[in-house]
Amino acid sequence: MAYELFYWNGIQGRGEFVRLALEDAGAAYIDVTRAPDRGTGEMIGLMESATEPRIPLAPPFLRDGDLLVSHVANILLYLGPRLGLAPREAALGWFAHGLQLTVTDFAAEVHDTHHPIATSKYYEEQKAEAGARAAEFIDNRIPKFLGYFERVLQRNPAGGGHMVGDGVTYVDLSLFQVIEGLSYAFPKAMRRYAGRYPGLVALHDRVKARPNIAAYLASPRRLAFNENGIFRHYPELDIEPGTGTAS
Amino acid sequence: MAYELFYWNGIQGRGEFVRLALEDAGAAYIDVTRAPDRGTGEMIGLMESATEPRIPLAPPFLRDGDLLVSHVANILLYLGPRLGLAPREAALGWFAHGLQLTVTDFAAEVHDTHHPIATSKYYEEQKAEAGARAAEFIDNRIPKFLGYFERVLQRNPAGGGHMVGDGVTYVDLSLFQVIEGLSYAFPKAMRRYAGRYPGLVALHDRVKARPNIAAYLASPRRLAFNENGIFRHYPELDIEPGTGTAS
Repeated sequence: MAYELFYWNGIQGRGEFVRLALEDAGAAYIDVTRAPDRGTGEMIGLMESATEPRIPLAPPFLRDGDLLVSHVANILLYLGPRLGLAPREAALGWFAHGLQLTVTDFAAEVHDTHHPIATSKYYEEQKAEAGARAAEFIDNRIPKFLGYFERVLQRNPAGGGHMVGDGVTYVDLSLFQVIEGLSYAFPKAMRRYAGRYPGLVALHDRVKARPNIAAYLASPRRLAFNENGIFRHYPELDIEPGTGTAS
Repeated sequence: MAYELFYWNGIQGRGEFVRLALEDAGAAYIDVTRAPDRGTGEMIGLMESATEPRIPLAPPFLRDGDLLVSHVANILLYLGPRLGLAPREAALGWFAHGLQLTVTDFAAEVHDTHHPIATSKYYEEQKAEAGARAAEFIDNRIPKFLGYFERVLQRNPAGGGHMVGDGVTYVDLSLFQVIEGLSYAFPKAMRRYAGRYPGLVALHDRVKARPNIAAYLASPRRLAFNENGIFRHYPELDIEPGTGTAS
């Protein structure tokens, strides 16, 4: 039976980390809110169900038969071994999940560059604060997180340009998305930083060239980045490193 | 061999969610940065090690023999079955981890009430923005998260006042800490909200009365809340619901 992915229609958002794993593995899945005979109402209905005992707070969540799994990192932990995208060694599995949770933290910080005060309000209502938070993010947080991921990559005893172990895992796919998203949202900073993270840039390029990923990216299933997702390009937040004011 | 917990000395912080599980189970563990012959240098040394292949970005992390596990939810996923604090049924295990990841998201939002712009700067440098973010947090985010946890609790088919299944899990312990921390940081809001979340309040009280937890809370191992942790009490952020301005 096909996996059912529940996520907001119209954006890559957090759902994209899951889509990349499903697509790379060539798994059968239904992107429920975008499927012709399904839709967003079904997703909301599940979240607001008065009878379903195990409800998720927010998408993305995945249904596999009777099982509902919520949160990106949890879904990838579940799918990883089933899709051949998890390390086989148990110790590496714990490490991979820890890395994915670091991606989760980072994605939340990306979101807050355009929503530093209130998720319930529009970006335009918190523009000044977003400018300050974006400057901090560009000057301190991108280097902190990408520097960390680069060290992990370079130090992988198995080498081979993978984040964990000697094969491609869901962590590699997620870091492709991180680099892709940052390059969309903050091209000035990413051009300046590219030389610092050669391993991540090469990893990004290798993932992009994987046949199933390349086919996915060229398909209508891959939505374009836009200003409703996590990675948003606002020219006024695309600040050269060291030139903004974080408060 | 005793578990080794690595976390910043002097605060409850994120480490507390792990400590509560270890303490409730009566597990042997070393709180490394607070141990007489150990210390913070050892933790930093591990994070900045030039040789260790699997480094964590940030504490808390747990060492069990050769294995290093980072991130609160990952650590609790690892410890849960070993400490008898995880559901036995696999489907419930995925649900419990999803709930813990929701606690993780919530803790990050609590942190950002006092640091909405820059983690690298002092609270005093972002006080105005903190006021706006705290108002949004109190008006919209506390009800969103606590309302969700209350629904999950009330709807648990096994009843018995547990978040997952028919026994105490690490999720129950973490929600005790969430209620405890919110009550410290935002007493005005929590007094107003208490009647809305009777299940969570009762859960909090039951966890607090568990013999090992009660003994822990009365011991010097339990640090007091303070203004270096995640849950901080700043009178100017302790806003009555509906009276602040979120932007």
